[in-house]
Parts: sequence; C-alpha cells; structure tokens
Amino acid sequence: MKPARSFASDNNAGVHPEVLRAVAEANRGHAVGYGDDPYTTSVVQKFKRLFGSDIEVFLVFNGTAANCLGLKALTNSYHAVICGEAAHIYTDECGAPEKFTGCKLLPVPVTNGKLTIESVSHAYHGIDDPHHVQPRVISITQATEVGTVYQPNEIKALARFAHQRGMFLHMDGARIANAAASLGQTLRQATRDLGVDVLSFGGTKNGAMGAEAVVFFDQKLGHDFLYLRKQGMQLASKMRFISAQFDALFTGDLWHKNAQHANRMARLLQTQLRKIPQVKIVYKVEANGVFAKIPRPAIAKLQRRYFFYVWNEQQSVVRWMCSFDTTEQDVRQFARFVAETVER
Amino acid sequence: MKPARSFASDNNAGVHPEVLRAVAEANRGHAVGYGDDPYTTSVVQKFKRLFGSDIEVFLVFNGTAANCLGLKALTNSYHAVICGEAAHIYTDECGAPEKFTGCKLLPVPVTNGKLTIESVSHAYHGIDDPHHVQPRVISITQATEVGTVYQPNEIKALARFAHQRGMFLHMDGARIANAAASLGQTLRQATRDLGVDVLSFGGTKNGAMGAEAVVFFDQKLGHDFLYLRKQGMQLASKMRFISAQFDALFTGDLWHKNAQHANRMARLLQTQLRKIPQVKIVYKVEANGVFAKIPRPAIAKLQRRYFFYVWNEQQSVVRWMCSFDTTEQDVRQFARFVAETVER
Amino acid sequence: MKPARSFASDNNAGVHPEVLRAVAEANRGHAVGYGDDPYTTSVVQKFKRLFGSDIEVFLVFNGTAANCLGLKALTNSYHAVICGEAAHIYTDECGAPEKFTGCKLLPVPVTNGKLTIESVSHAYHGIDDPHHVQPRVISITQATEVGTVYQPNEIKALARFAHQRGMFLHMDGARIANAAASLGQTLRQATRDLGVDVLSFGGTKNGAMGAEAVVFFDQKLGHDFLYLRKQGMQLASKMRFISAQFDALFTGDLWHKNAQHANRMARLLQTQLRKIPQVKIVYKVEANGVFAKIPRPAIAKLQRRYFFYVWNEQQSVVRWMCSFDTTEQDVRQFARFVAETVER
Amino acid sequence: MKPARSFASDNNAGVHPEVLRAVAEANRGHAVGYGDDPYTTSVVQKFKRLFGSDIEVFLVFNGTAANCLGLKALTNSYHAVICGEAAHIYTDECGAPEKFTGCKLLPVPVTNGKLTIESVSHAYHGIDDPHHVQPRVISITQATEVGTVYQPNEIKALARFAHQRGMFLHMDGARIANAAASLGQTLRQATRDLGVDVLSFGGTKNGAMGAEAVVFFDQKLGHDFLYLRKQGMQLASKMRFISAQFDALFTGDLWHKNAQHANRMARLLQTQLRKIPQVKIVYKVEANGVFAKIPRPAIAKLQRRYFFYVWNEQQSVVRWMCSFDTTEQDVRQFARFVAETVER
Repeated sequence: MKPARSFASDNNAGVHPEVLRAVAEANRGHAVGYGDDPYTTSVVQKFKRLFGSDIEVFLVFNGTAANCLGLKALTNSYHAVICGEAAHIYTDECGAPEKFTGCKLLPVPVTNGKLTIESVSHAYHGIDDPHHVQPRVISITQATEVGTVYQPNEIKALARFAHQRGMFLHMDGARIANAAASLGQTLRQATRDLGVDVLSFGGTKNGAMGAEAVVFFDQKLGHDFLYLRKQGMQLASKMRFISAQFDALFTGDLWHKNAQHANRMARLLQTQLRKIPQVKIVYKVEANGVFAKIPRPAIAKLQRRYFFYVWNEQQSVVRWMCSFDTTEQDVRQFARFVAETVER
Repeated sequence: MKPARSFASDNNAGVHPEVLRAVAEANRGHAVGYGDDPYTTSVVQKFKRLFGSDIEVFLVFNGTAANCLGLKALTNSYHAVICGEAAHIYTDECGAPEKFTGCKLLPVPVTNGKLTIESVSHAYHGIDDPHHVQPRVISITQATEVGTVYQPNEIKALARFAHQRGMFLHMDGARIANAAASLGQTLRQATRDLGVDVLSFGGTKNGAMGAEAVVFFDQKLGHDFLYLRKQGMQLASKMRFISAQFDALFTGDLWHKNAQHANRMARLLQTQLRKIPQVKIVYKVEANGVFAKIPRPAIAKLQRRYFFYVWNEQQSVVRWMCSFDTTEQDVRQFARFVAETVER
Repeated sequence: MKPARSFASDNNAGVHPEVLRAVAEANRGHAVGYGDDPYTTSVVQKFKRLFGSDIEVFLVFNGTAANCLGLKALTNSYHAVICGEAAHIYTDECGAPEKFTGCKLLPVPVTNGKLTIESVSHAYHGIDDPHHVQPRVISITQATEVGTVYQPNEIKALARFAHQRGMFLHMDGARIANAAASLGQTLRQATRDLGVDVLSFGGTKNGAMGAEAVVFFDQKLGHDFLYLRKQGMQLASKMRFISAQFDALFTGDLWHKNAQHANRMARLLQTQLRKIPQVKIVYKVEANGVFAKIPRPAIAKLQRRYFFYVWNEQQSVVRWMCSFDTTEQDVRQFARFVAETVER
Repeated sequence: MKPARSFASDNNAGVHPEVLRAVAEANRGHAVGYGDDPYTTSVVQKFKRLFGSDIEVFLVFNGTAANCLGLKALTNSYHAVICGEAAHIYTDECGAPEKFTGCKLLPVPVTNGKLTIESVSHAYHGIDDPHHVQPRVISITQATEVGTVYQPNEIKALARFAHQRGMFLHMDGARIANAAASLGQTLRQATRDLGVDVLSFGGTKNGAMGAEAVVFFDQKLGHDFLYLRKQGMQLASKMRFISAQFDALFTGDLWHKNAQHANRMARLLQTQLRKIPQVKIVYKVEANGVFAKIPRPAIAKLQRRYFFYVWNEQQSVVRWMCSFDTTEQDVRQFARFVAETVER
C-alpha cells in the first residue's frame, strides 16, 4: 500500500485542519463578493499588522498569478526581469510572465539557487539603448527552488543594487514562511526590512487550500493593482473563503508553526539520509526540501512507492519536500525505504 | 440588523454544505498536484457521463478565466468575438478577454439579453479583408445577464449561423445550471446538443466555493488547453479541492436541485413583487434573477438594509438574484420590505 | 484605358516629386542608423519649430503604428480608449490597438464623423470599478473618416472633458494637414493649442512615400517611447529616408500646399457632382473626401473604370478621395463619367 | 573630415542607385494601396521564380517585424523559440518577439555564432509538461551575427532535428544574400532546399531603402499572415514603393552582386588587417563582417574618425561591416588608419 503522505511536494499536502475550519466558519449567510466582505477586511488588517500599516495587499488564487501580476505592476512591456535560470517564473510557469507582462525574463546563473550581485551585474546592461529591453526588476525566490535560504545581507545587497539603478526587488515567496522560520525572522524582517518591494506571499504550501497574496511595501506600486487582478483573471467572487485561509494561518502563528515543522522534518530527513553512503545531499537543507544525488537505478524503484520529482536527470538528483503534515514517522519510514532501496 | 442573506448576487451566497463536506473529505493525506489526483480523475469521469465521453474538460478558478481561456483556445489574435453589448465578457471582465486573447470583442445589441441572428449578422462583415478582425466566435450567456433564458431553437440557430461561417459558438454558462433547470433539460441537452462548441461551466454560483470548468465538445479544440491554462495562471496546485466541489454538485443532482431552487425563489419573488404597483418587472423571470424598475428614491432606502446592484441607473432598474440558499422567508421578508419602502 | 489617377484613396497617390527628390538627396554616403543621423536631427528641429521646442517626436512607418504606439504610451492594459464607432483605430486596423496595448476600445456613435461630449459621456463610466476597464484616452480623427473637420471649439471641449477626468486626448491625424488647411490654422493651432496630448501626424497621405510621426506635446508622455517604438517593430534602420520625406513636406510649406490642393479638388468635385440630381452628397465636404449616395447599379459600372471603395453598402454611399496630385481635369473627367453613368 | 562611408553597419549604407531608380519609376499615377498593385504582383512573381511557385511571400517594413511576424505565424503563446544567445531576436529587438508572440525565447550557447544540434538539444525539454513552454521553432541567423555562415549540412541537420520533433526552422535572413553569395548557392538552395520553413528575407542591408519579406515555404503556414501583418502594424499603404525595391534587387541579380561585393570587401579588409600584428580576427570572415580584437585604447581613437560598434567590451572585440557601396579605397584607407592607430 502506498503511504498516505509522500515527499513529492509541499503542495501535495492537504489543508491544515485550522484552515479548513476557518473556511467552514466563513460559510455563514451571504457576504458581498470580490473582497468587500468582513473576512477580507479582517485579514487585510492582519497583513498590515505583520508588514506595516502602509502596505497594499491583494489576494489571488495561485503563485504563478501572484508572481505575474506583481511583476506586471512593476513593469512596462519593454522592461526586463532579471531572475535565476532555475527560477520558478523562468522554468515552471509556461511563459505566463512573458505573456502577461510582455517583458523578457533574463536568466542568470545561480549559486546554491541564489542570485549574486555578480551574476545580476552581467544581466544589467544595454541601459538606455532602445534595442535592448531595460532591466527593471530583480526577482528572487525565498526559500529558493533548491531548498536554500538567502541570508539577510544577501537580500539587502541585491535590494541595494536594484534600487541604486532604479530597479525593484521582487520576491517569489511561495515558501517565504519556511525561509522566515529558518532565519528566525518575522515575516516583515524577512522581506520588507531587507528592501523587498513586492512579495508574492505563499499560503498554499504553508497549509492553505489555495491562497496567495501580492504584498506591495510601497503603496504607490499597488495603486492600480485592483484592475490588474481583475484583468489577470484573479479576482475571486467568493473571496471570503480565500481570506479565511490566510486568517487561519495568521492566527496563533500557525504559519510559523507549519513552516517550522516542515523545516524540522527536512532536517530530520537529512540526518537520516546522511547515514546512507549512497545518498549525497547536494544543497544545504535550510528550508523544507532535501535535494539528493542517488544511484540512478534507485529512482524508479523508489517512485514505485513514493511519487516524487527528479530534479536533474543527468546528475541523478532528486527532490524531496516536507510539509506541515509530514510526521517523524513518515520521515523515518521513508529514509528506511531509501536505505533499503539504494542498498539493494 | 441586516438580514443574513441578501439578493445582491448568487455569488454572495456561501457554499452548499454538501460541497463543503466534499472539500473536507478530500483532505486526506497527500495527493499529486495539478490535477493528477483521484478526485480530479473521478470528476472528469462525471463530466464525461454528463456531456459525453469524447469531451475535454479543464477546471479553473473563476468564470472570467473560464471565458477568456476558452475563447483563447478558439482564436488567433486577429479574430473577433461577437457578443452581446451587455455580455459579462464585454462589460465586467476589465478587458481580460482582449488582454489574454488579443482579439477584439464586437458588441451587438441584445433583445431580452439575447443575441439574435439579425444582430449577429450585422457584426459578421469584413470577411477576408485584412483591415478587419475576422469574426471567429459567437459568445452567448446562458442564462443571460438579465435573467432570461435562450430557448433551444434560438441557440441552435446561432450555432448553425456560426458553423456555416466557420465560426464557433461559445457559451458563458456561469448560470447554465439555472438555464438547464429552467428549460427542463439535461446539461448536455442544454449545451452540446444545441451546437455549443465550448462551454464555461459555472459551479461557483451554483453552490461551490470557487469552481469553474471549460468544457470542449470537440476534443481537438481543447488539445493544447493544458498549456493555456498554465500560461493563463489558472492551474491549481491542490486541484483536488476544486474537483471535490464539482463532485458534490454532480452527486445526487445537487447542481439541479440548487438551480431549481434558486429559480423557484426568483419566481416567488416575482409573484410577490407583482403585487406592488410601483414595481415593474422588466425582463422575463426565467432563471434566478429578477430585474425591476422601482421608484428612484426607493433604491437607497432599500440598500440601507439589503445590499444589491443597480442595473441601469438611468432607468432606475435594479437586479435581485436568488441563490441555492435563499429561503421562502427571505423572499417574503424582502418583498414586504420592498412594498413598505416604495409605498412610503 | 483606365485613368492614371483614381479617387479611391489619397494613399493610392504616388509620392510628391519634392519628397522623392529629398529622398534621393539623402542618399549620400553612410549615415548612422536608427535615427542618429543629421537628416533626422534636422527634421526633428523642424517639428519643434512647428509645434514647440518642448515636444517629443518619433518617426514610424505607417499610420496604424503611429496610432497604436501613441496609445500604448498613454495607457496601461486595463485602460480603455473611447473612440468613434467609425474610427480607423476601431474598424480598420485589424485589432492592432487591442493587441499592442491590451486595452479595450469603447466605440461610441458619431455625428458627422465626430465624437461629441454627449456620446463620450456615455462611455465614461465604471470609474473606480475594477470590473470595468478605465477610460484613459479619447481618440479623435482629424480630418474625420467621412471628410468632415472638427471645429476648434469642438476639440477644445473634448480636451477639457478628457483632462478634467484625468484622460488624454489623442488625435489620429492621418489627414491633419487637410484639416489644418481647411481651418486656416497652423499645425500647432490645429492640435496642441486645442489641447491635443498626442498626435499621429500623417505624412503618407500628404505626399510622402511612407512617413508618419508620433508627436507628444508633453515630453513626459514620450519619455520611454524609444523602447515602445523598437518593441513595436517601428524603428527604421535607414531612418534618414523617412526623415527626408518629412523634411520635404515641411520645406516651403509643401504639406500645406498639398493639403490645400487636395481639399480644393474635393470641393470642385462636390460642385460638379451637385449638378447631378441622382448623386447626393451625404457629409459636408470639409477636407479632401466626398461621400455620395449614388444609385446602386451605378457603383459597379463606375468601378469598371475607377477603383474606389463603397463606404456603406446598405445605403449605397461611396467614398471619393482627392489627393495632392489630383488635377482639375481629373475631377471634371470623373464627374462627367459619373454623370453619364448614373444617367444611363 | 570624416570619410563618406564607415564600417559601422551595412544599414548605415545608403540605397543602391538601381533601387532608387526603381522607386522613382514606380511613382507613376495612382496604384491601389496595400499591395493590390502591379508592382507588388510583379515582385511576388519574382519571389516565386526564385523560391518556387508554391510559396507565400509578404513584404514588411523592417527586419524585426519580419522576424516577429514570421515567428507568430508558427506559434501559439505557450510555445518557445530556441535561438542563439547572440541572436538578433534575443538581444536586439527590445523584447518585440516576446511581446508580439507571447512566447518565451530560449537562448542557447553558440559556437562561431551558430547553433549546434547539441546546444539545441539542451533546450528541447519539458515536452508535454504543461509547466513548461513547448519548443516550437528553432531560429537561426544566416549569415550569423558574427559574420560566419552556416554550412548547408549544418542547416539541414537543424532542420531535420526540428522536423522530427514537430518544430519549424526559422531563418533570420537579414543577410541571407551575403550567405548565399558566400556559399555560391541560389537563394532557394540556401534556404528552402535545406529545410528552412520560414525566412525573413532582408533587402535593407542588401541595398534597399527599407524592404524586408517574410517567405513561407509551406503555403499553409502563411495562410492567415495577411491579418498578422496588418495587426502587426506592417501593412504599407503605398506598398508599391517597397515592392519596387525588391524588384530592383532581383533584376540582373543585383542582390547577388551587392552581396558578393560586400563579402569581397570584407575579405579584403581581413587581408589588410591581418598585416597588423596588434589586430586579431576573431571569427571566420565568411560574409560581410569582420570581427577583430584590437588594443583597447585604439577603440576610442578609431571612433573619432570612423563610427562603429564595440561587439564585446570586455574582450575588446569590435565589429566592422562592409556593404554594397564599400570601395576598395575605403577598405585600404580604413585599414591604413587602423594600422597607424594601433601602432601609435
């Protein structure tokens, strides 16, 4: 029998019971559609308490939309977005950013999943030349796509580089909760205070059913976002049920508990895997993912019981993600299965 | 105290308890993301039982997306979509169809909210002239935006007109359940069998939390839709929770009961309102909406207790919608309040 | 034998000899591409002398591009452009404005080819409602598509209406020369001084080979236009040959002579046609076009010798345009042929 | 005094006298606009004689447009275009391809300016995965951006690779004349016969004033291109003057003479430069460009007399282009100046 929980992705997890309860509790009578409801008003207040009263925040359905709409708010069609060559916006959104913004994405090499000033510098060129797209945004993913976490000073440096050149810093925070928990920072410390201008705030991987937010730390940037969200097909009619999800995540620091737990499970998984000589951890385990190089023949065997993604086929690197509902037992059971499998 | 339920919109209603239960029941263990889960597989089968095994169906977040993505699948950027001047796609989607498809929408006058062959004929011109956008789709809304319902022969005629000219018939079925119930037809009879090529199937106004589907009655038309959905920022990671909603609506004909009930409430509201001399029903009540011309000063007074939308400010016409959760008492109470208010 | 010159369109005319000479004279040695050449520098100076030193001006290939790029500079994708239902941008550009700007065009009825405050007012609604596109530009065509000319106070009123609401006034000046000549105004008086914000300045119909300009009367609006022009595929590498065309039109007021002559030929044609009882002029002849209702059977007969366009098939209205090279003899010969044909 | 002719770019050259004469000769009487004129009919026939009677060909204003519109005809928005990281479409068109097609461009490393099967293979992945854009076109530039020329078998291999995977081969032929002349091939041999599906045929750098063509070797691919051209703002009203330019280039094999001459001048320049020890030619001189590494301090000194572009600032590589009007004397004079300058 297949196990109830896999290590395929934090979005393969279900919904945290508190989130589900909040959704059920929001199901009382009628509420005005499209966000003019008390649940949304309330959750916006909570966002403001977390990030500062002078922000603008907008709920959307999924992370791709949060990224694309946020970037559109920062750009005109002749701009460019500098991002990592492994960035979700570059490799996993089927060209949605280009289609919705009209912009070119400029991929640059990453080190441990992270942009550096040096790599970004190479993409910052052609300035004032009408033949070239004009770099306007640096986009980083926190935690990164390979489970590492930017250190505060790394983000500050990128923000400074961007701002000195009239660019913005965008953060794809599909796993910002994991990063903040990992760094021991508040959400604000992990984003706004480091110079991030616009944040895609991910709720879904943190235990929600489907809830993401675009947070503007400069209200002017979000001035017309209401229209972009509607034109971007991301205005929920029964928005209260998205708001309720964030509300639950923000109640009793559930976001933090969920993230911390997932991170801890990843570290535990790392610990267990390290005992297996045939398994080599290839990136620092700083958030909730473990990337491991394993013997090629083991992949298919493992996948027979546990669905997961191969990260790099050529290098035989696989990705294993932990989530809020991963249990210690899940981890130990899986690590044991890995050990048995690779040893055969 | 404000009443628990208003007549503002069927999307101001909450979620049907069976839908909520289905969502909660889907919350078991992990499931592969993006639709490769048993819940989605199951609901696709149910769609196929309802519409025929040779369809393609794709779930999306909301109705605007269902419309825009469906239209994009039918068009190239130099095409045009003929629609009513009051069509939701023309007036209420903030230009999302134009932005996502690149197409021009050609608005034509409607009669009782419906396109006619005559009105459509006027927009069908400039054929083979490269200066003109080329009409490619006729889009109708069923039930219409003003609460009327196309008769089967009306849709058949539009489908024939379209197909004879190499065009497609698209149906914005945000309220197709209400229309089918009103006509005493199955969902298939009300759509595919009349010649509709692509359907935006609305679950949200029928009692879901947020669940819409694009149904292609010719599989070839949906061939590449997987990519359009992702690029259109409409691919849900935890899709099982959308699938579960449709599953509930399709279980025990819940969709039909919900729609029938809402329609019945609208008829009851009509009956009650007809007793008020100052209120004039302006469109046939064939689905779940009542459009009434009322004394202008009454509008603000009514809105103090019941939130609702003014449909036509100049003509003092307002819109009152019933939904699956509207009770007879709600209707009688509201009608009484209307009577008292307009009589003052 | 077919006559050398028809009345089909002012773009069926050739190139004025002075323009051709200027092109030939610009063909000396090498010049830096993309506009960094002395011919372009010189013609930009001439534009500034005509319109004011604080303008921005950019040359493009054709009128559709001038319109689309100019509108894009004024809008974000969720904006709307209010225009006449007979506007070239609405009916004759194959959806290029929607495709390039993402905006919806809101067509309003025209009177004698002109927008009025009243018609525009109806399209100005849904303000601050995220479900609606936000009107941002009023676009007028001067001279109009039906050969009439806005009076200065009409334009001033539209500009005032626009500016009071945070909108811009765009002028499609494919025939601005004809309008200015008709009104006895300078180019500046006919545009900037009336409140126009952005002008598509047409050279092609005025005797050029293919030369149009986008003129921003507020430099800020044109700030990033260099990039839009390149991204809009309108940056000519050998730009000097476009610049030379405008230079010729601006030398010795050739633009004015050409326009005045074309206008005079249209008036002469009107005079001649008025003598024919079966021909009814349907719009005021204020520029270089004559719109006439003629007996339906005559259309095909006339077209056998003279190619021209039917403007309104149902009303049997045809369009006859004069151009800089139309001769009096052409007009008399054509009018005689019309007379003979309709009388048969 | 600055020399009349520089080595900055083949688009800094003027217009070949025969082209100018053809333009002047086309200036006779009226001609129907938008391509329904005898000049265009005639030149289309000439294209068909060169490339086969079953092609479709469309004239546009410039090379960026030829590329973008040609690519749009081959793609839907979720497709990707594989191209060299130095491709003009990737680096020098200000994001026009992304904006007009909605597609992502996938840059791959080039060897001597050329794509290889190996580099292309790396970009061909994510097939059938809706999270990934789907590779649909391989785009090559011939002659390349660095003055090299693909050998016939190299193009055949790329075409085979593309066609075996349901992809198309697009050729940016801004300098296809130079390549064909270099290879001793006819235009057809150099394109269609190697498996190219769509060609951007460059006239401008070959001696025209501004004339490019999109040639479809499979008519079906060009089926709707009339609309794309108009919507892409590339339909010239006085098209005869573009047609006349191509007509001249096709008369007496002028295209070939111009290209051959330019290539010969580049080889002469190479010969002369090779005598200068401080100058190192960095790419094979196979067409009309010479790329040389020169002492960094010489660049600014040379530019004081001759305008030209630095190709690679870091490596101190400059680009010198020859054109149809470059004379032997120009070359010798320039080479002498280079020698003097670098030796100082």
